[in-house]
Amino acid sequence: MQKIPYKIYLTEEEIPKSWYNVRADMKTDHRPILNPKTLEPVTVEELSPVFCDELIKQELNDTDRYIAIPEGIRDFYKMYRPSPLVRAYCLEEALGTPAKIYYKYEGGNTSGSHKLNSAIAQAYYAKQQGLKGVTTETGAGQWGTALSMACGYFGLDLKVFMVKVSAEQKPYRKGVMETFGASVTLSPSDTTDIGRLMLKNHPESGGSLGNAISEAVETAVLNDGYKYVLGSVLNQVILHQTIIGQEARLAFEKIGDYPDVIIGCAGGGSNLGGLMLPFMADKLAGEKSPYFIAVEPASCPSLTRGKFAYDYCDTGMVTPLAKMYTLGATFIPPTNHAGGLRYHGMSPILSQLYHDGYIDEARAISQSEIFEAAVQFARHEGTLPAPESAHAIKAAIDEAIKCKETGEEKTILFCLSGTGYFDIGAYMKYNEGTLADLVPTDEDLERGFSAIPNINL
Amino acid sequence: MQKIPYKIYLTEEEIPKSWYNVRADMKTDHRPILNPKTLEPVTVEELSPVFCDELIKQELNDTDRYIAIPEGIRDFYKMYRPSPLVRAYCLEEALGTPAKIYYKYEGGNTSGSHKLNSAIAQAYYAKQQGLKGVTTETGAGQWGTALSMACGYFGLDLKVFMVKVSAEQKPYRKGVMETFGASVTLSPSDTTDIGRLMLKNHPESGGSLGNAISEAVETAVLNDGYKYVLGSVLNQVILHQTIIGQEARLAFEKIGDYPDVIIGCAGGGSNLGGLMLPFMADKLAGEKSPYFIAVEPASCPSLTRGKFAYDYCDTGMVTPLAKMYTLGATFIPPTNHAGGLRYHGMSPILSQLYHDGYIDEARAISQSEIFEAAVQFARHEGTLPAPESAHAIKAAIDEAIKCKETGEEKTILFCLSGTGYFDIGAYMKYNEGTLADLVPTDEDLERGFSAIPNINL
Repeated sequence: MQKIPYKIYLTEEEIPKSWYNVRADMKTDHRPILNPKTLEPVTVEELSPVFCDELIKQELNDTDRYIAIPEGIRDFYKMYRPSPLVRAYCLEEALGTPAKIYYKYEGGNTSGSHKLNSAIAQAYYAKQQGLKGVTTETGAGQWGTALSMACGYFGLDLKVFMVKVSAEQKPYRKGVMETFGASVTLSPSDTTDIGRLMLKNHPESGGSLGNAISEAVETAVLNDGYKYVLGSVLNQVILHQTIIGQEARLAFEKIGDYPDVIIGCAGGGSNLGGLMLPFMADKLAGEKSPYFIAVEPASCPSLTRGKFAYDYCDTGMVTPLAKMYTLGATFIPPTNHAGGLRYHGMSPILSQLYHDGYIDEARAISQSEIFEAAVQFARHEGTLPAPESAHAIKAAIDEAIKCKETGEEKTILFCLSGTGYFDIGAYMKYNEGTLADLVPTDEDLERGFSAIPNINL
Repeated sequence: MQKIPYKIYLTEEEIPKSWYNVRADMKTDHRPILNPKTLEPVTVEELSPVFCDELIKQELNDTDRYIAIPEGIRDFYKMYRPSPLVRAYCLEEALGTPAKIYYKYEGGNTSGSHKLNSAIAQAYYAKQQGLKGVTTETGAGQWGTALSMACGYFGLDLKVFMVKVSAEQKPYRKGVMETFGASVTLSPSDTTDIGRLMLKNHPESGGSLGNAISEAVETAVLNDGYKYVLGSVLNQVILHQTIIGQEARLAFEKIGDYPDVIIGCAGGGSNLGGLMLPFMADKLAGEKSPYFIAVEPASCPSLTRGKFAYDYCDTGMVTPLAKMYTLGATFIPPTNHAGGLRYHGMSPILSQLYHDGYIDEARAISQSEIFEAAVQFARHEGTLPAPESAHAIKAAIDEAIKCKETGEEKTILFCLSGTGYFDIGAYMKYNEGTLADLVPTDEDLERGFSAIPNINL
């Protein structure tokens, strides 16, 4: 009989009552976001045409370690949280590793991913402010689906700009969002100035998150009663997602263990930061030293091949400047990439922590390796992962195999951030052997880098 | 603060250690299955070319109240069970009902439904017997997906015959099954005698579960090292599924409540029986009297418009005869129906219990009503249901509204047997208003009834 159960659940009352704001603990705080015209830190007033008031406060808060989660959000959390911390016994056995592999499974809700953790928070604050609705962009569709659920729940209108290539790969994502009452526009679209410009200059474009962001921001600013919300990158989103790591940390306390290695897939940083940061608190306090690994796709390698620089958060260059690892706001990853993780930059918080050495390692992995790991995981663990999450799986498997070689009984934790239900088209291509491994050339990268503004701050 | 949590979880150790065999308790046992040639009860020897040895024993067992669950099956159960019993607080509030609505959510695993409960059991026994593989049919694809996961886990080969119309509605189901290593053939196919005959006589046929069963049985019998397995209807399947109701019953014990009304959607009977029978034990013992409601689609109304008669379990009329509510083995429901629940008959156990009045009521509901209830549920409860499961939701909502009118604080329990992830195509049609409500005419039914053999037993 196994001493530690397959799934470690917290009780409903143990769902964290606040989010963890790592910025209060960071030795070198990440640099403020800047107004691109003045190069001065943006103010509340400058942000308020775009964002909800309470979310702006959270975005700029670098003093409060904990920010209370309102009851209205916790009530919704209770419908799908706490998420289980799962011991991957069957995968361990198949690998023959002495390592203990755990994953925090965030894909068990209808949106299929961790994105719901921030979506419900942002929709809540929009509702509190009396807004009519919100606008957003979505890539793989996870964020848009989560936000459509949250807006459906609170009766808010939602306008989603969906990256065209993703919408074509995942037609049903659009259907889910519409079922929850959202309206979905493919990006680039002819409904915005930015979109029309993009269509004119790049008529064949499959779109990018950066461009969809520009369209969503433009739409929010021009429509009364609407604000813009974002599913990753921003401090506020990373903040909301810390519920993942806080729950995981508490579950490890319950079983009397602590992870040696902590792994997350890296797109804009929402699940990576969400899982890591509550453990990062221990590292920043000098109490523990878990080894943090960020795993990104070789097709969109912001951490491993990007620059640490002030850059725009969107292709249209209408947003403030953030100091982050970036491939340049105009960078568009190869259209063949099957999942999300297509954003040109990385959360400023995580960028700074990586730059300062607190995140120990970043790895870029090719698409075919990812799907191989995904299928291996699915057959042993009975859960089909999102291709995004499979980046973390691949690294976890590799770490477990290293343990087999060294005989170390390390405790490995990764975030299984989403389900693969909506990526069957990509799995089918993988099964048929028709999934290509496209990686940007140095010239592709140089083209992206050339659009990064020259700011030495 | 709510006294009862949103989700009531059992511990891993509380997962039942045996399945409940209601036949040991039934006052009037359902009639034995018959050899169609001799009209005598079938023997172990007659069944063994088709079924696994251990499963035949379970099929014919009418004496043991409990049948132990082997450790190898419980280990797999631990990866996705116990499933939560969920209190639908948000739906209750939206309905303004004094009723307490609970649902047992079986869609939280990768197969997306309760079917995995029996799939893993059947694959386990096939593996124990040293078989190379198994054959089966699938309609909506839930069973095929579950079995592909189970076979992938045990390294068994799997040949799936998938009802053609379902495969066309749900292209990605095939992709999932193949990802787990199964081979999938659309039925009717030209790989079997039965299929070729069907194609010749009905070249435009979208297929039916009954026909796919015939093809799968033929394939199992003609291939060495293969047996046939089935996802519903059979006693063994209903037996395995009792884990649902046993867990639910224990969860109610924990919160000090007991359901007044118990609702399940009705296709072949697997989730209906799985949820109901452990509570039926209390009714058969005269200790409790919950009100049982079976809900079926108006397009395939075996309980509400079918006959209680000995009939074939498959269209090809190669299987034994079972006494059940049936529309006739040749009945094919309208192809427009969006989900599963397309089988012409109903589990003999449940048919007998309905006939004897222990299942209190059967209702047939139209497809558009189902999707309306499904969307309502999704927006309030944050879980997109399978259209099959939405039959139970619709009845639960109707019962809760009755309680609002009468002021009764009834406790309502239903089985949310699956997720709607794979039915987005149908939801999109519903959103567009293009989902038709086709119901068989009296002539359609008479045509089906005319194929029922004339056996007065």
